[in-house]
Amino acid sequence: MRITALAGGVGGARFLRGLLHHARTAPSTEPVELTVIGNTGDDITLFGLRICPDLDTLLYTLGGGIHEGQGWGRADESHHMAQELAALGAEPTWFGLGDKDFATHVFRSQLLGRGMPLSGVVERLSARWGLDEQGVRLLPMTDTPVETHVVVSEDGEQRAIHFQEWWVRHRAELPAERFVVAGLDRATPAPGVLDAIREADVVLLPPSNPVVSIGIILGVPGVRDALRGSRAPVVGVSPLVGGRPVRGHADVCLRTIGVDETSEAVAGLYADFLDGWLVDEDDPMTSRRGLEVVHRPLLMSSTDAAAAMAGAALDLGLRLRPGSGRA
Amino acid sequence: MRITALAGGVGGARFLRGLLHHARTAPSTEPVELTVIGNTGDDITLFGLRICPDLDTLLYTLGGGIHEGQGWGRADESHHMAQELAALGAEPTWFGLGDKDFATHVFRSQLLGRGMPLSGVVERLSARWGLDEQGVRLLPMTDTPVETHVVVSEDGEQRAIHFQEWWVRHRAELPAERFVVAGLDRATPAPGVLDAIREADVVLLPPSNPVVSIGIILGVPGVRDALRGSRAPVVGVSPLVGGRPVRGHADVCLRTIGVDETSEAVAGLYADFLDGWLVDEDDPMTSRRGLEVVHRPLLMSSTDAAAAMAGAALDLGLRLRPGSGRA
Repeated sequence: MRITALAGGVGGARFLRGLLHHARTAPSTEPVELTVIGNTGDDITLFGLRICPDLDTLLYTLGGGIHEGQGWGRADESHHMAQELAALGAEPTWFGLGDKDFATHVFRSQLLGRGMPLSGVVERLSARWGLDEQGVRLLPMTDTPVETHVVVSEDGEQRAIHFQEWWVRHRAELPAERFVVAGLDRATPAPGVLDAIREADVVLLPPSNPVVSIGIILGVPGVRDALRGSRAPVVGVSPLVGGRPVRGHADVCLRTIGVDETSEAVAGLYADFLDGWLVDEDDPMTSRRGLEVVHRPLLMSSTDAAAAMAGAALDLGLRLRPGSGRA
Repeated sequence: MRITALAGGVGGARFLRGLLHHARTAPSTEPVELTVIGNTGDDITLFGLRICPDLDTLLYTLGGGIHEGQGWGRADESHHMAQELAALGAEPTWFGLGDKDFATHVFRSQLLGRGMPLSGVVERLSARWGLDEQGVRLLPMTDTPVETHVVVSEDGEQRAIHFQEWWVRHRAELPAERFVVAGLDRATPAPGVLDAIREADVVLLPPSNPVVSIGIILGVPGVRDALRGSRAPVVGVSPLVGGRPVRGHADVCLRTIGVDETSEAVAGLYADFLDGWLVDEDDPMTSRRGLEVVHRPLLMSSTDAAAAMAGAALDLGLRLRPGSGRA
């Protein structure tokens, strides 16, 4: 069974790890071939090194190297390099980079510097993390450098800062006017991205940020069209529980683009291609023509909980498949 | 008193640390302004990062951050990044790079990537290591990228490998035919290099490798002429004790260029500008017209021993100054 997922960082990675766990443990599930299309909009160049936070979180989580407590970065990490960079007066100091993590960035930057496309680098990193053995193929949404910036206003002045500076340094507390995604309009989907959507049996949208993760992937020219045209049902998972994100700042991002902080409003962002929608058990939203809504507990408090959630999304997708009595 | 020294890595750094110790502790010594012209011929690009082993050994040694046991690299060092790079399949694995050391290389590479000349980078690194407060100015011999390669013969085939590969990976055991210094003929001395030689009160040649350290610096167009024309006495310290180097592979390097492994033969390499020559207490070499030879113990077994050696070289230089009753 070919599953294609669009994913951001921590939430997407945990959901997909749950999906793989579900596929391995649920007796009735066919073997899964999972293609993950990862957001690269929050990529950033720091210390001359290219850093891809969402892709790395996906790699580390699915490969078993993630720092579970943080949700990002490597387990058993040291920070000797970052301390020395600070001693050297190198900026910035607000982006947490461990020594093992730095190796990923040095390796990637070296390969990119030699002219290898990002998708080629991701293939190399995927091999190191054994994704292939798990039936997982990770693709960056695009090989074109794309960077999300945030227009913030401070003391009546507007200025654009990198998404990471807004998210990590300012914890999304600096009032945001809008998001500007440099390079997105001229980006092309990475090799395999459109085919993975067109040829999937089910397309899943994990509970990633609908604005700065899923929303950015949808903005790569061709991706949204492929989703609209796909034969496969598209099933999403709401990132909101009780009107607030379980993690991160999706509520702030939604407010910034003028969208209500409800599962209903988020589904509206996907209205042109969404077939199934998993919302929290207490969510007031109900099914409508063309959109099957299913209520489930949406807290990924453990791998088992994430597996149950992903299993519910997958089951909904299978139920909505053409020829499966789809409404 | 303005002292200018040409220096390679470990031996040069220890000698110069001894010189500073001597200047601080010997009551009769005037305050010293030391300019160090460091070899960059053994620089290498690994993992996309520019590494300057001799300059870093000078910085770490004079700045108090050196790994004393090794003579190179940082004290209290970890190797998490190198381990992860090996897990990623990145090459090479034979060049020892610790996490703190990597920070230096990332910092330098970032600044070079922005167009800063190496001498500007060295100035930044010198500030981190407090060289200024010690009256020390470190200059790379040139801002032009220069790389020493070694033509080796294996199974009847000749090929050129980077000096570091020959020195570190093969421990200078691979038969060397000759050294080729890529970029040296079109290199220009870094800003301040020629003036530091011309305006010095004494020029010192520490017991660095006469072929692949001092010899490379002398090969930068203009440097040798400046030494020949300098009013300051030039005093060198033999790197050989009993016909063998105290450390490193100077004997192999001398054989490779067809020069005897004697203090006398090494002095011959500097014959056109050398005024004073410190040799080991048991060395058979004697003074001659135009070259004052002084015998002293040449083992830098401690900072005190290095200070005594450097003090003897400095005293010889002061004695040979014009107007000091020079022969």
